[in-house]
Amino acid sequence: MVISRRAIRVDWGDCDPAGIVFYPNYFRWFDANTTALFEAAGLSLPALYRAHGLVGFPLLDVGAKFSGSSRFGDELEAESSVSEWAEKTLKVQHRFRRAGTVLVEGFELRVCAAPHPDDIGRIKAAPIPAIVRERLGGREQPAK
Amino acid sequence: MVISRRAIRVDWGDCDPAGIVFYPNYFRWFDANTTALFEAAGLSLPALYRAHGLVGFPLLDVGAKFSGSSRFGDELEAESSVSEWAEKTLKVQHRFRRAGTVLVEGFELRVCAAPHPDDIGRIKAAPIPAIVRERLGGREQPAK
Amino acid sequence: MVISRRAIRVDWGDCDPAGIVFYPNYFRWFDANTTALFEAAGLSLPALYRAHGLVGFPLLDVGAKFSGSSRFGDELEAESSVSEWAEKTLKVQHRFRRAGTVLVEGFELRVCAAPHPDDIGRIKAAPIPAIVRERLGGREQPAK
Amino acid sequence: MVISRRAIRVDWGDCDPAGIVFYPNYFRWFDANTTALFEAAGLSLPALYRAHGLVGFPLLDVGAKFSGSSRFGDELEAESSVSEWAEKTLKVQHRFRRAGTVLVEGFELRVCAAPHPDDIGRIKAAPIPAIVRERLGGREQPAK
Repeated sequence: MVISRRAIRVDWGDCDPAGIVFYPNYFRWFDANTTALFEAAGLSLPALYRAHGLVGFPLLDVGAKFSGSSRFGDELEAESSVSEWAEKTLKVQHRFRRAGTVLVEGFELRVCAAPHPDDIGRIKAAPIPAIVRERLGGREQPAK
Repeated sequence: MVISRRAIRVDWGDCDPAGIVFYPNYFRWFDANTTALFEAAGLSLPALYRAHGLVGFPLLDVGAKFSGSSRFGDELEAESSVSEWAEKTLKVQHRFRRAGTVLVEGFELRVCAAPHPDDIGRIKAAPIPAIVRERLGGREQPAK
Repeated sequence: MVISRRAIRVDWGDCDPAGIVFYPNYFRWFDANTTALFEAAGLSLPALYRAHGLVGFPLLDVGAKFSGSSRFGDELEAESSVSEWAEKTLKVQHRFRRAGTVLVEGFELRVCAAPHPDDIGRIKAAPIPAIVRERLGGREQPAK
Repeated sequence: MVISRRAIRVDWGDCDPAGIVFYPNYFRWFDANTTALFEAAGLSLPALYRAHGLVGFPLLDVGAKFSGSSRFGDELEAESSVSEWAEKTLKVQHRFRRAGTVLVEGFELRVCAAPHPDDIGRIKAAPIPAIVRERLGGREQPAK
């Protein structure tokens, strides 16, 4: 299983009048973590989207729990990996630490999406390309 | 119980290269929904913070499920209410509809926070001011 | 000349640790103002893009001057209009007031953009559709 | 004169439905560039604010010109330096390049701000601490 790590510096504009990170920014970082995770496995998302005619991996379900706050100038370490696989969906786990202490834990359940064949402007679920599972370390799906 | 509703217009900059709302923006709207919910109950958050020496209601836990996507120009209706109360925390439910169809359902578990008495720059949990519960329709806490 | 006005409520997440609006948000509002300006003239941008094969009106030049700051809960009035026209560009002026006092003045010089015919993924400048000029009140271009 | 450089990776969520960076994000990066510039000179902004009782360096004037667009996955190099000094203001120049080609040039005119002595919640202009000019390479102000 591939685990990616990246450093996140908390910027001034990430923080709110209480001086702590405005929480939607953690989800912005979740999204970039997922990009970084694919890249850690040798997969460029822009190239993957082009090669497989995908529009992205939109969210079905997302959540986060916060056990501490972060402030301007904090250095966070984000750690991400795929924890669950299905034919058309994958679940990414994210964990943020500062100096070793976990501050945020969360997940994204994402679905592989292609343009809808009958309606430009809409999208539909698509099987996850085999290379994604191979590279990111998902086990073989058992035969049904 | 107070239920607040507000209209949200999906802006160009809210959407990503797939043409749909970049999901962290829903949480930005959750946050503004909560402000609107307090106001629907006659409570201005800036005034409340000043009057009670609070720094805000940071998040402990948050989640959202997506059953549809939204695009530039969509008109969403957000509906919010407090679904659970504790001494220092409250849980806000949010639901987004477009033309009556639910697209997003989520919640924020928030804690009432004041400046830490011993360490400027840190925050600590504080009891929710009584007026918040009275106005937003929380039942009396049972005697312990 | 069409002048559009819209109310903007400063949200908690729009503000930084100094308690004032984090300035990139004004440009987010500029962008939404421009959408509102087109709509005030009866032009839906999503529909306009579809009808004329455009990808949008990206920026060539942008600027803003700030004479006051805004805080959480402030009610701003944004006023926008097109101040200059060229074949493929238009300049939008934006002004934000709070209780009648101007706080921000700025402009966006935007170019009408279509997909590049030779390179999917790139864009090229395109003539502004005549209906845009008619509806938004630009005078006839003088004969050259 | 100190010149700072930092790499910026264009994230999915930085881009709009046209597939290019939603322009307010460049200003978010300008702001972070300025933080990085101070740090390149050995100045931590959070520490500087605490040591000198400042609330930040809000904007008076800002502008940017765009000669190219950026897309998801692009690697940008941002280069920043202070180009003008006054007693209470400084002007920061920013330039973004991709593979050596300049895409964006802009500036921020910032004012050094402290809490207003008579009105908590307001701010006032303050002299730039001497250490800022020394470290960032501003020449001595000529005697008046």
